Amino acid sequence: MRNIIETLDENQIEELERQYAIYSSGVSEIIPAAELKEKIAKSIVSGIPMKIKLGLDPSAPDVHIGHTVVLNKLKQFQENGHIIQLIIGDFTGKIGDPTGKSAARKQLTTEEVKHNAQTYFEQFGKVLDMSKVELHYNSKWLSTLNFGDVIHLAGSITVARLLERNDFSNRLAEGKPISLHEFFYPLMQGYDSVMLESDVELGGTDQHFNVLMGRQLQEHFGKEKQIVILLPLLEGLDGVEKMSKSKHNYIGIDDTPNDMYGKTMSIPDELMTKYFELATDLALEEKKRIKKELEERKLHPRDAKMLLSRTFVRMYHGEKAAETAEHHFKTVFQKGSIPDEIPRVIWKGEKQLPLIDLLVELNLLPSKSEARRMITGGGVRVNGEKVLEIKTTLEIKEGMILQAGKRRFVQLTFMDE
Amino acid sequence: MRNIIETLDENQIEELERQYAIYSSGVSEIIPAAELKEKIAKSIVSGIPMKIKLGLDPSAPDVHIGHTVVLNKLKQFQENGHIIQLIIGDFTGKIGDPTGKSAARKQLTTEEVKHNAQTYFEQFGKVLDMSKVELHYNSKWLSTLNFGDVIHLAGSITVARLLERNDFSNRLAEGKPISLHEFFYPLMQGYDSVMLESDVELGGTDQHFNVLMGRQLQEHFGKEKQIVILLPLLEGLDGVEKMSKSKHNYIGIDDTPNDMYGKTMSIPDELMTKYFELATDLALEEKKRIKKELEERKLHPRDAKMLLSRTFVRMYHGEKAAETAEHHFKTVFQKGSIPDEIPRVIWKGEKQLPLIDLLVELNLLPSKSEARRMITGGGVRVNGEKVLEIKTTLEIKEGMILQAGKRRFVQLTFMDE
Repeated sequence: MRNIIETLDENQIEELERQYAIYSSGVSEIIPAAELKEKIAKSIVSGIPMKIKLGLDPSAPDVHIGHTVVLNKLKQFQENGHIIQLIIGDFTGKIGDPTGKSAARKQLTTEEVKHNAQTYFEQFGKVLDMSKVELHYNSKWLSTLNFGDVIHLAGSITVARLLERNDFSNRLAEGKPISLHEFFYPLMQGYDSVMLESDVELGGTDQHFNVLMGRQLQEHFGKEKQIVILLPLLEGLDGVEKMSKSKHNYIGIDDTPNDMYGKTMSIPDELMTKYFELATDLALEEKKRIKKELEERKLHPRDAKMLLSRTFVRMYHGEKAAETAEHHFKTVFQKGSIPDEIPRVIWKGEKQLPLIDLLVELNLLPSKSEARRMITGGGVRVNGEKVLEIKTTLEIKEGMILQAGKRRFVQLTFMDE
Repeated sequence: MRNIIETLDENQIEELERQYAIYSSGVSEIIPAAELKEKIAKSIVSGIPMKIKLGLDPSAPDVHIGHTVVLNKLKQFQENGHIIQLIIGDFTGKIGDPTGKSAARKQLTTEEVKHNAQTYFEQFGKVLDMSKVELHYNSKWLSTLNFGDVIHLAGSITVARLLERNDFSNRLAEGKPISLHEFFYPLMQGYDSVMLESDVELGGTDQHFNVLMGRQLQEHFGKEKQIVILLPLLEGLDGVEKMSKSKHNYIGIDDTPNDMYGKTMSIPDELMTKYFELATDLALEEKKRIKKELEERKLHPRDAKMLLSRTFVRMYHGEKAAETAEHHFKTVFQKGSIPDEIPRVIWKGEKQLPLIDLLVELNLLPSKSEARRMITGGGVRVNGEKVLEIKTTLEIKEGMILQAGKRRFVQLTFMDE
């Protein structure tokens, strides 16, 4: 395999360079890049597609724009004829947390796992051609291992190597407990690569350690080593934390067109370029043009953000829905009165509140009596809808926009609870 | 169980104190002593014997005097009606070393394990009544655990706790590799206690960590916690290292009477009291008397050592063999010419050597021609036997005594290779 690239003809080299340029665009790291080229070359010569692996946590199947960074990368491989291997990590899910301490890692039934996998499948279908995707459950092989097999698996790695993982070394240094079973989660993920003989595994930069484990275990078990491609993490609506369901800072790809459009309008301006680059399907030249025009102030940030919002709705709901959502947004929020930027407020209070209290608490109005007056006068809108009943109790939702009078707007966003 | 001791009548208290005095004599540590008293009390009241556990490595079945320290303690429990549980750690033996690095931990077949267990059984029979001993193979339960069970087992312990074991923390600090599977050996040993519901586990002080693991795992699995009794380690013939087969510094309980007698005569004087206390079956008062008389120089060290040698031969070969061995020793080595102490030399050279070369190398004789002369003149003895052939090649053995002329003696001993 060492010299396969030297054996390629001109057309093959061109094809190699074309594919490599696509796969390496917008990634944080390829480990190691030279071997990825060799794998591509080998697949061009042999006609055998590469196997591209992505591991999935079976407990949190709500797919959001943050996930699409890696999904879009998978799509690039799929469009070039390679095989996508999705692995549902159901073995871990079925074991639950042996210490019983983590409520998040409660034991899942086979039915729950199947249902969650189905949800992934449907949502991923908005990006990938699922008819060509391999779906695997890792309990298939992990549940057949006995104690002797586990000892042999554990014999492939040193304690020092495991303690290199940041969260392990930090917790050990801080005197926080690491239960021994936690050392096995990276090993399981790595063993999946052994069983599936994956050629490439994708992951976010926070998966650096776990994804590399596959490479190490494949070598230990005498297999060809996979390439690791790490992708940048997308910050959520707050512009600070990684987008995630638990942080309430996400745009779900199952969100309604209006929610998706509205939430996207609430991201900080400085993140727009990153969102365009990592999460949209626009052509590379188009992304470059937008970035340049924003830097040169030829493109107004609000207009760019509207293009981003429209793009997301188009990607997940189609062209027509995108137009309708934009029209709705303009009708409701613009009407000539929309400010250039709607101030966002991080809301850490109750999730249910009388509208009057909320208006005062947000300083949109100075007192409850003012709030009552403004509501009965028809000056208060929630997500653009006039509210006339002063006893209204609101369910506060991520991205909700409140308006008091013509010019006072606030958009609510949640942070880590 | 908390107050069971308070419920005992006078006779029962006397019995409790009697047993406790025996079990606690000559031990390094009882963890915790108060609970041992409760366990004894409970067994007195209920009439149910305690279960006393000893784990055995299946790969090294040569039993030596060092092992008898713990065997003698087991015997005390057995003589009081308690049940001895011997566990052959065959599961580990059958797995072998998953890293393939340790030649010592090569994979054993079922037949080899059975054969080694049989060897233990025969040799232990010289101390214990084996008809009343329970023999267990831990592969019986460990081989039935699947990956999920192992994860739950691993969930019972933290990495920090495992790193408290000295050899682990030292190796980590020194950058020497600890393979992850090594963390499971103490867990396996502990799990054996869970399965056998042991009341007491014995071990050498170097087993401190592993034996305590049983206590911790029993608690984790909702069982009554075992008591840990740690026994002192007996130094070998060199007087420095723990007695062990690999250090070539041991007296095997299967050694011939003459070997056993001769080797015992070679231990350093300062160790005699410890050998008497830990390894002989003499009465407590007798041991105390010997110690006192040695301290007061009323008993000659050589005479004490001959008593020790005679005692060992009697214990493992009977009274008659002891007399014969002593007679042999006197005839061969004493004949009025034995020095008070035979100088010992640590031999690190070849194990096979021409006798002439050896005599020179040991400085028993100044040159090869002198050596030849002395041999032909009948002045050279090996283990008391005259050697007349100058071309003799010697197999050097632990405890071998060389004599050149009437007064020059040397006893050879091996050290760690």
